[in-house]
Amino acid sequence: MKFLKIPAATITRLSLYTRALEVLIRDQVTVVSSKTLAELCGVNPAQIRKDLAYFGQFGVRGVGYYVKELIFDIKKILGLNKEWSLAIVGVGNLGCALVAHENFSKQGYRFVAAFDADPIKIGRKLVTGLVIHAPDKMSEVCREKGVEIGVICAPAQFAQDIANRLVEVPVRGILNFAPTQIQAPEGFKVENVDFSVKLDNLAYHLTAG
Amino acid sequence: MKFLKIPAATITRLSLYTRALEVLIRDQVTVVSSKTLAELCGVNPAQIRKDLAYFGQFGVRGVGYYVKELIFDIKKILGLNKEWSLAIVGVGNLGCALVAHENFSKQGYRFVAAFDADPIKIGRKLVTGLVIHAPDKMSEVCREKGVEIGVICAPAQFAQDIANRLVEVPVRGILNFAPTQIQAPEGFKVENVDFSVKLDNLAYHLTAG
Repeated sequence: MKFLKIPAATITRLSLYTRALEVLIRDQVTVVSSKTLAELCGVNPAQIRKDLAYFGQFGVRGVGYYVKELIFDIKKILGLNKEWSLAIVGVGNLGCALVAHENFSKQGYRFVAAFDADPIKIGRKLVTGLVIHAPDKMSEVCREKGVEIGVICAPAQFAQDIANRLVEVPVRGILNFAPTQIQAPEGFKVENVDFSVKLDNLAYHLTAG
Repeated sequence: MKFLKIPAATITRLSLYTRALEVLIRDQVTVVSSKTLAELCGVNPAQIRKDLAYFGQFGVRGVGYYVKELIFDIKKILGLNKEWSLAIVGVGNLGCALVAHENFSKQGYRFVAAFDADPIKIGRKLVTGLVIHAPDKMSEVCREKGVEIGVICAPAQFAQDIANRLVEVPVRGILNFAPTQIQAPEGFKVENVDFSVKLDNLAYHLTAG
């Protein structure tokens, strides 16, 4: 199943399909055609079939997809049939927003540890009850809590140092919101989130359109 | 130049190239090979040449790209040779983080208006000096300030209503951070930002890898 190189865009779309399928489950829809699912996701039906074909055969010809079955299968493909334990590093406005973000917990991402270098914040609790620890407790706390993914929300100039600490813990991957490129050892997975890239997309379409 | 349909991934990569080129400018590098630029961006050199080929001919064979020239050209393609005026709607933790985010202003995105429905916040000033207005002032303030892009940072249940107001202003596009799909009239551009999609990408690679 994992012999083919799967395009990154396919993985992103699988993720979007699960969002649409969750809405269908909420609305008690049990079966969906690829046409309807495609409309909900803003792609064409052939794209959905192509994306799923990388991972096997899904759906029933002339019937469509069983919603619960498909979401179960996609979540398994994405590794979302488990909960992931996250640490937030940097609990400023953005860090607080992420910890409280309902989509994260809904998708099975749980923040189990929080860190900040600001002495005023250390020892305080976030609204979720998480205690904020000093960065020098990172290895100890992350190991104790079984942190798998570190989420960096610190200013750019501290991001690399934080990443180095997270690699040392070791966590398994990093989601980086700091506006800078992070260096990590070969094979260590870092995803960068740059809001302004989305704005560039918008600007391009407003200009070219 | 605009006859071909440009893949969305190309636009996203162009945006990433500008980030790398800005680092080169900061480091006073004047010429860069496609190999070096590719390494900085985590893509292969052929990809860069292919992405740029959609828009014309760039760089000099055997020399590389003139950094300042290339960034100027890419920014022009992306519509970033101008400043964009933004309104933030919803100034909770995330909204405050976005308004203060250094990458936005660096890329020419300026928040010129802010709105929130919370009576306690209305009339207050953000750290940037922006006054928070009530949502019913949206048309008036957005027109007065020349807002082109509305950025929605409100809870999911208010997002569609806010989008409707922004469409009515009218602004030219919406960047939506609320965890819900927004309906907009045909041809009106909405970009959705879903942090958890990035986490799904990470989860997939940690599972499949």
